[in-house]
Amino acid sequence: MNEAVVLTPERILEVTEDVLRRYGLAKATVVDVARALDVSHGSVYRHFPSKASLREAVAKRWLERMDAPLRKIAQDTGPAPARLETWLRTLFAAKRERVCDDPEMFQTYLTLAREACAAVKCHKDGLVEQMSAILSDGVKQGVFDVTDTKATARAIFDATSRYHHPAHADEWKDADLPARVDALLALLLRGLKAA
Amino acid sequence: MNEAVVLTPERILEVTEDVLRRYGLAKATVVDVARALDVSHGSVYRHFPSKASLREAVAKRWLERMDAPLRKIAQDTGPAPARLETWLRTLFAAKRERVCDDPEMFQTYLTLAREACAAVKCHKDGLVEQMSAILSDGVKQGVFDVTDTKATARAIFDATSRYHHPAHADEWKDADLPARVDALLALLLRGLKAA
Repeated sequence: MNEAVVLTPERILEVTEDVLRRYGLAKATVVDVARALDVSHGSVYRHFPSKASLREAVAKRWLERMDAPLRKIAQDTGPAPARLETWLRTLFAAKRERVCDDPEMFQTYLTLAREACAAVKCHKDGLVEQMSAILSDGVKQGVFDVTDTKATARAIFDATSRYHHPAHADEWKDADLPARVDALLALLLRGLKAA
Repeated sequence: MNEAVVLTPERILEVTEDVLRRYGLAKATVVDVARALDVSHGSVYRHFPSKASLREAVAKRWLERMDAPLRKIAQDTGPAPARLETWLRTLFAAKRERVCDDPEMFQTYLTLAREACAAVKCHKDGLVEQMSAILSDGVKQGVFDVTDTKATARAIFDATSRYHHPAHADEWKDADLPARVDALLALLLRGLKAA
C-alpha cells in the first residue's frame, strides 16, 4: 500500500472517475480502482461498502460539481432578473459543455445518475429551490410579480427542459440554438415582470 | 384479387397500420399488407414504390392526424389567449393519449417518424406556423405584445417541449402534471400579454 497519500473518499472518487474514463462503465471494477490507488480493494470497501454505493457517490459528485457555480449565483445579491438569466445560461452551458467536451463520460455519468434516482431528484429539487430564492429576491426588489415562487421556479425549470434535460442533448449543437435560447429567456422574464 | 373495394393509397395505409399493430414493425412486410388487402404485392407497389415510401406515408398520416384538430383551433376566430391555451392543451393531450392508450404503436410510429425526418421537420414547422397565426391574431386584437411572432411561437414550442416531445413521454403520467402544466401556461401567457 502506498502510504504517502491518505485514502480519503474524495481521493477514491477522483481515481474512480479516471478508471471509468479509461475502462468504461461496463468493464471498470472496484479492483481496478484499488489497483490505480495502489491499495487493497478492502481499503476501498472501507469507504464505500459496495460497488453500488461507489457508483452512487460518483453520480452525486458529478451533480454537485454542476451545482456549485449555480448555488453561488443564487446566493448572490444584485438585480434578480439578471441573476436569473445568468443562472439559467450557466446551467445550459454546464450541460452543453459536458456533452460536447466528453460525450462518452457524459453517457457514463448519465447511466450512473439514472441508477441514483434519489440523488437526481434531490439535485433537481435543489435547482428549483435556488431559482425560487432568486424569484423571492425579485419580489422583494419589486421587479417580479410572482405569487407562488416554488411553483413558478418549477415552471421555469420545465420551460427550459430543452436546454438542460439530457434527452435533448442531440439538439444542443443546432446552429439556431443561441437565438432560440434568447427568445425563450426573453419570454419567461417578461412573464415574471412586475407591472 | 378482391374487386369489391377500390385500392386507394388511404385504404393501403389503413390496412398497413392494422398489420403493424398485429405483427410489429420488425416483422411486418409489404406481402403481409397485400395479403390483408387480398391483392398482389405488385398492387401495393403501384401506389408505394418501396417499403421505405410506405413507411414514410404511414408516419406522415400519423402526424397529419395529430395536426388536423390543431389546425382547426388555429384557423378559428375568438380571443387569442384562450385559443393559444386550448391549442397547447390539445397538443399535449393528443401526445399523452397516444402514448397511454397504445404505447407499443406509439413506439412504432416514433421509429417511423425518426426515419421520416423531413416529414417531422415539416410537421414541427407547421405547428409553429399555427401558433404564429394565433399570436398575430392576438396582436391585432391588442391582447398580445409580440414583435416577432415566428420566433415567439418557436419559443413557446420549445418552452412546452416537456409536454409534447416524445423524449419526455415517461413523465406524462406524473401526478403533479396538471398543476405543472397550469403554472407553465400561466407564465407563458403573462409573458405575451400587452401592457
